[in-house]
Amino acid sequence: MNQNLIDLTSQIVDDCLQGNSIDCVILGYGNQQLKILLLQWKYSQEWTLPGGFIKKDEDMDNAAYRILEERTGLRSVFLNQFYTFGSSERSHENGVFQAKRKEKLQKILETENPGFIDWIQKRFITTGYFALVDIAKAKPHPDYLSETCEWKPVDSLPGLIMDHRAIVDKALEHLRIQLNYLPIGISLLPNKFTMLDLQKLYEGILLKPLERSNFQRKMLNLGIFNRHEKQLTGAANKAPYLYSFDKDAYHKLIEKGIGFTY
Amino acid sequence: MNQNLIDLTSQIVDDCLQGNSIDCVILGYGNQQLKILLLQWKYSQEWTLPGGFIKKDEDMDNAAYRILEERTGLRSVFLNQFYTFGSSERSHENGVFQAKRKEKLQKILETENPGFIDWIQKRFITTGYFALVDIAKAKPHPDYLSETCEWKPVDSLPGLIMDHRAIVDKALEHLRIQLNYLPIGISLLPNKFTMLDLQKLYEGILLKPLERSNFQRKMLNLGIFNRHEKQLTGAANKAPYLYSFDKDAYHKLIEKGIGFTY
Repeated sequence: MNQNLIDLTSQIVDDCLQGNSIDCVILGYGNQQLKILLLQWKYSQEWTLPGGFIKKDEDMDNAAYRILEERTGLRSVFLNQFYTFGSSERSHENGVFQAKRKEKLQKILETENPGFIDWIQKRFITTGYFALVDIAKAKPHPDYLSETCEWKPVDSLPGLIMDHRAIVDKALEHLRIQLNYLPIGISLLPNKFTMLDLQKLYEGILLKPLERSNFQRKMLNLGIFNRHEKQLTGAANKAPYLYSFDKDAYHKLIEKGIGFTY
Repeated sequence: MNQNLIDLTSQIVDDCLQGNSIDCVILGYGNQQLKILLLQWKYSQEWTLPGGFIKKDEDMDNAAYRILEERTGLRSVFLNQFYTFGSSERSHENGVFQAKRKEKLQKILETENPGFIDWIQKRFITTGYFALVDIAKAKPHPDYLSETCEWKPVDSLPGLIMDHRAIVDKALEHLRIQLNYLPIGISLLPNKFTMLDLQKLYEGILLKPLERSNFQRKMLNLGIFNRHEKQLTGAANKAPYLYSFDKDAYHKLIEKGIGFTY
């Protein structure tokens, strides 16, 4: 028996809307890989997206910001609602809450806490939000159901519970569409980065290799980067140039868009 | 007392999820105007979007298709989820269901039907879907709360209840973003149309006038139109050319996109 868990889950039942949840696809870039923040459940060791519920008097957007902050310590980062998942089978199979999931939750909670288990057995419609964060600034923190909270490379994700894989795929699809009309990267990359970093980030989102010189020419033509001097070390002439975003130019381009114009 | 209404609303309470609704932004094009399908409530004469609830065992997407069919008679048209509206104040002010709205609903329903009024007083999170339909094929049909169901020009909408105006604006914003990377029009325009029809449709979505020759050159360069012979009437030489979509070319271009490529 864990009194903290009982208190916490009882409070969720009292304070939150039943039937609606939030799942966050939190993306970061590190070691030339696009990564996503995942939680691993206690006991069953299954992987899930960070998520949570909406308080009865809380705006859904604010709930998403709260969940993001609880898991990463980050406030006021870019957070975007991308899709709501309303399949009747997403948490139920043939209308019946999966018995195995109920058993797992009981083990994870170290108690039956019947109020919470009953509450969470209802059909839930979940709204997906995605965030693009600087990995160096995030401090991953597991929730009450989880043992760990860690960054996993998007191109080799472990299996995820329920429809969480479809939620990740939809977030990436949304981001890929955005790349057709908006430049991105300012929230994902460190202050200074190489063109190869930028290319690897785009390749991670587009899920395809890009031709280096063509990519660099197109990106540099956007006029949103400052190039910095190479540092004079022994290997300086082999070191790639470092770039940063010219924030004014970047935000002007975001306003204008880079897609088809009429 | 209207027994039909009591039966219908009691069935909603029994069959549907409480707390989630759907609102449809149904767009059509006619008389060189972008139009939207609205319902006018009985008694209060207020205008609303067509909407409804999700049955307990029904996928949210299927609920949206059902509502679209109930209001327009149309099946299998293009229907796209665009955003979920989760403000805590959208149907409540300071957590209290608006007393005036309760009174209106009682008048409209010609009964108190306390079960339904209680049910609908809960906070609802609503998911917006938009459809692009051929006005000539739609058969508008009011729902149980409404007197009429009609097409209204988007550029001069009447006042709408609750946050329905914000829902319309978000749908149009979504459509404007789509125009940055996709051509549209195949679902909205009749089989044969003039370039001016196409321009008026784009102007209705983009909310700005477009320069005629530049617009026509860019559109014709997309290579997705068939030009038809002018009919030989007295005024033939002044009549504009009629075009239709080359469906194969259109769908190939949709696949490829027209936005920025990497």
